[in-house]
Amino acid sequence: MKLYSAARSSASFRVRIALNLKGLPYEYAPVDLVHGDQFEAAFRGLNPAELVPVLEHDGSVLTQSLAIIEYLDEKYPQPPLLPHDPLDRAYVRGVALAIACEIHPLNNLRVLRYLVKELRQSEEAKNTWYRHWVEQGLAQVEALLVAQRRYGRFVLGDAVTLSDVLIVPQIFNARRFDCRLDHVPTVMRIFDACMTLPAFIDAQPSRQPDMPPA
Amino acid sequence: MKLYSAARSSASFRVRIALNLKGLPYEYAPVDLVHGDQFEAAFRGLNPAELVPVLEHDGSVLTQSLAIIEYLDEKYPQPPLLPHDPLDRAYVRGVALAIACEIHPLNNLRVLRYLVKELRQSEEAKNTWYRHWVEQGLAQVEALLVAQRRYGRFVLGDAVTLSDVLIVPQIFNARRFDCRLDHVPTVMRIFDACMTLPAFIDAQPSRQPDMPPA
Repeated sequence: MKLYSAARSSASFRVRIALNLKGLPYEYAPVDLVHGDQFEAAFRGLNPAELVPVLEHDGSVLTQSLAIIEYLDEKYPQPPLLPHDPLDRAYVRGVALAIACEIHPLNNLRVLRYLVKELRQSEEAKNTWYRHWVEQGLAQVEALLVAQRRYGRFVLGDAVTLSDVLIVPQIFNARRFDCRLDHVPTVMRIFDACMTLPAFIDAQPSRQPDMPPA
Repeated sequence: MKLYSAARSSASFRVRIALNLKGLPYEYAPVDLVHGDQFEAAFRGLNPAELVPVLEHDGSVLTQSLAIIEYLDEKYPQPPLLPHDPLDRAYVRGVALAIACEIHPLNNLRVLRYLVKELRQSEEAKNTWYRHWVEQGLAQVEALLVAQRRYGRFVLGDAVTLSDVLIVPQIFNARRFDCRLDHVPTVMRIFDACMTLPAFIDAQPSRQPDMPPA
């Protein structure tokens, strides 16, 4: 199994966590997004969308972090990242997608570049944009968790699921851009619980071979 | 089953297609996004994220269109919207997420409003933004389909899957904003094939009770 990953890419971070939770060893293939490796022919041949992560497995090329994680969960069911009951599964996926579809896409590198290059926004305006979507999006995740009251140590009771795998990288991004987090105490308790687990600790950007020096 | 939907919301459109494909009758609860129904207490009690669609079923409230569709597929397996093989499932989900995570979030109503209100962008710049992400995102979906060569009438062979359910509403949005589509012939052939099917035809915005007059 070979993972094309960037240390700070939160979509890559999600897949690293899932691989660790499943106890699956993998080859780490770094993709330097700042340098532009994703636009080179070799990488575009793997993923024409020019995005990490990409997982190579069994001669196939998989893209999109959530699709990769669902694949890993189907192929290697233990420990499960989705519960058994369809309503619970929908809840777990709903929380994950609230991050994957409502927060992360707005703060992707290519979007931030468009704001600066095409819309001629200042660094300050770009950072305000970033924080706006993270803070609003996490507030909505918090409200959903509180409204449904299904959390324990993690989003659904006391077992790690796909939702938790999505929350942790998003909080790393939030901290990197100095976003407010005091308005999302439930999310932060879950984040802290995750960060006691080796699968999450070992997947963080600073533990990756391609993490840029501070 | 009750679906909170807006005629032109492409995430609602996806769920309407899935419900039709499964032959499931449902109550249609319109949410007027332009008027701001999604910000009212009654709706926020259902979905604190202030987004459609929301599905009420069996006393539960489900959010996020992809989570809802996966739920429907698990609960009502015929006809399947995901294939059986895990690699095929990953492919179908990957194409769906390339739309749900890379194109649609950038063109959401609240994002367009932020561009105009907070970043003081002109109508012209807003429309250029819209077209940029749709045209680039669809080009990447096209490149993925062509690279993997698994399509037949639809994204994966000749049976409708989740990928097709995502493509059709995105093309409706693209046309509404006059996006270029001549660079994505495979996507458009699939779109045309879908639009011969009653499940897709009946789910389109113009057939909904809350479609605004032209």
